Amino acid sequence: MLTAHTIKIIQSLDKKKYRQKYNLFLVEGNKIIKELPNSDYEITELYSTDPDTLNLENSKVHKIQPAELKKISFLQTPKDSIAVCRIPKEEKIIETSIQIILDGIQDPGNLGTIIRLADWFGIEQIICSNDTVDVYNPKVIQATMGSFLRVNVVYTNLESYLTNYKYPVFGTDMDGKNIYKTEFPAKFSIIFGNEGNGIRPSTEELISQMITIPRFGKNMSTESLNVSMSAGIILGQIFSNK
Amino acid sequence: MLTAHTIKIIQSLDKKKYRQKYNLFLVEGNKIIKELPNSDYEITELYSTDPDTLNLENSKVHKIQPAELKKISFLQTPKDSIAVCRIPKEEKIIETSIQIILDGIQDPGNLGTIIRLADWFGIEQIICSNDTVDVYNPKVIQATMGSFLRVNVVYTNLESYLTNYKYPVFGTDMDGKNIYKTEFPAKFSIIFGNEGNGIRPSTEELISQMITIPRFGKNMSTESLNVSMSAGIILGQIFSNK
Repeated sequence: MLTAHTIKIIQSLDKKKYRQKYNLFLVEGNKIIKELPNSDYEITELYSTDPDTLNLENSKVHKIQPAELKKISFLQTPKDSIAVCRIPKEEKIIETSIQIILDGIQDPGNLGTIIRLADWFGIEQIICSNDTVDVYNPKVIQATMGSFLRVNVVYTNLESYLTNYKYPVFGTDMDGKNIYKTEFPAKFSIIFGNEGNGIRPSTEELISQMITIPRFGKNMSTESLNVSMSAGIILGQIFSNK
Repeated sequence: MLTAHTIKIIQSLDKKKYRQKYNLFLVEGNKIIKELPNSDYEITELYSTDPDTLNLENSKVHKIQPAELKKISFLQTPKDSIAVCRIPKEEKIIETSIQIILDGIQDPGNLGTIIRLADWFGIEQIICSNDTVDVYNPKVIQATMGSFLRVNVVYTNLESYLTNYKYPVFGTDMDGKNIYKTEFPAKFSIIFGNEGNGIRPSTEELISQMITIPRFGKNMSTESLNVSMSAGIILGQIFSNK
């Protein structure tokens, strides 16, 4: 049985303030939870409507009722289990060949999708501006479909970081160089900007080359592509020569 | 003022059955509504909280209160105006160079995103299996961001259609030919399948070549990409040589 206190703490984990206070975040669904023991993430508590299906050697698993799961789940249709995990103490920037930089992405679905894309293309690291949506937001974790386990997501001051970064930095906007005519080096960063405002001017100053997906449709009313879709198409093009 | 009868009819338009009964569908938001007079779509009624902002020479515009708009909107955060439009009587298959075929896509967001991609890449037609989600579903219309105005979406029996189609047909799955090593002819169709089950066997039999986006990440747990993201990456690659 879940106590009112436990329910209250878990429900609070949709807010960054409380995730930071308790150093905890949630992972929902057996499929992703089963990958946790092979990762660096520590499970502090496990709640499941059917612990047998989890098949985890973990003394912390609590059997709960579907009505209780509904209270602590952030999904419209709750799955089978919820794991409460510890947020790692420190995020370290690693050396990578190709990395993604996000400048003020706000939508949890976009961040989750971009993490999933990074995982697909084997990109090991995403560096985020401090105002980018938090990776431990339950909607982000869910949208990654488990890919957050395999991509290093780090938050930092982009201006200082880029000032000291020694490799080419590509930015994406509406009137950069055609991606199909751009050659990408072995080691570089690619920046995607905020959904509404794009890359902010202070970041843009530190970019070596702006690039663009050309629009083949002739109608000027056509909306520009969503940031995560742009990221997918651009990464697809970058990896066409790998 | 909206009558209870009008509210009831408009609310029923989220169901295909009622859209077909009344031959009507909804378009929400000034931005897209303003494009309607330049399209083949006929507006039957217009409801707006601020008709002046619409700036349309249309006698059918009714001023309504925000509370009324909320009742007839399918959006979580209703916009400014709603147009009730007539569903065109007949959909005709046109001759195109590159076209998309959808085999049982169920998610309105995926269909809307694929229509938006088609518009971006200048693809004029999407041919859907009869069981693909209805283009006039309010969630599809919204996800297209107006692109439904510029892409011909037709529903048909794919088996009969493909049997008589004379050009190459590419299909997408997890173990086809690498898209980066595939040459695309001047005229062809590309098929994307259902979110869970992919392309059905009876359609697959009529495909000339299966293609795949190679996964560069080494981890086998990585989820395959969502169908609309795959469509974006594959179209991005197809157009890299255009």
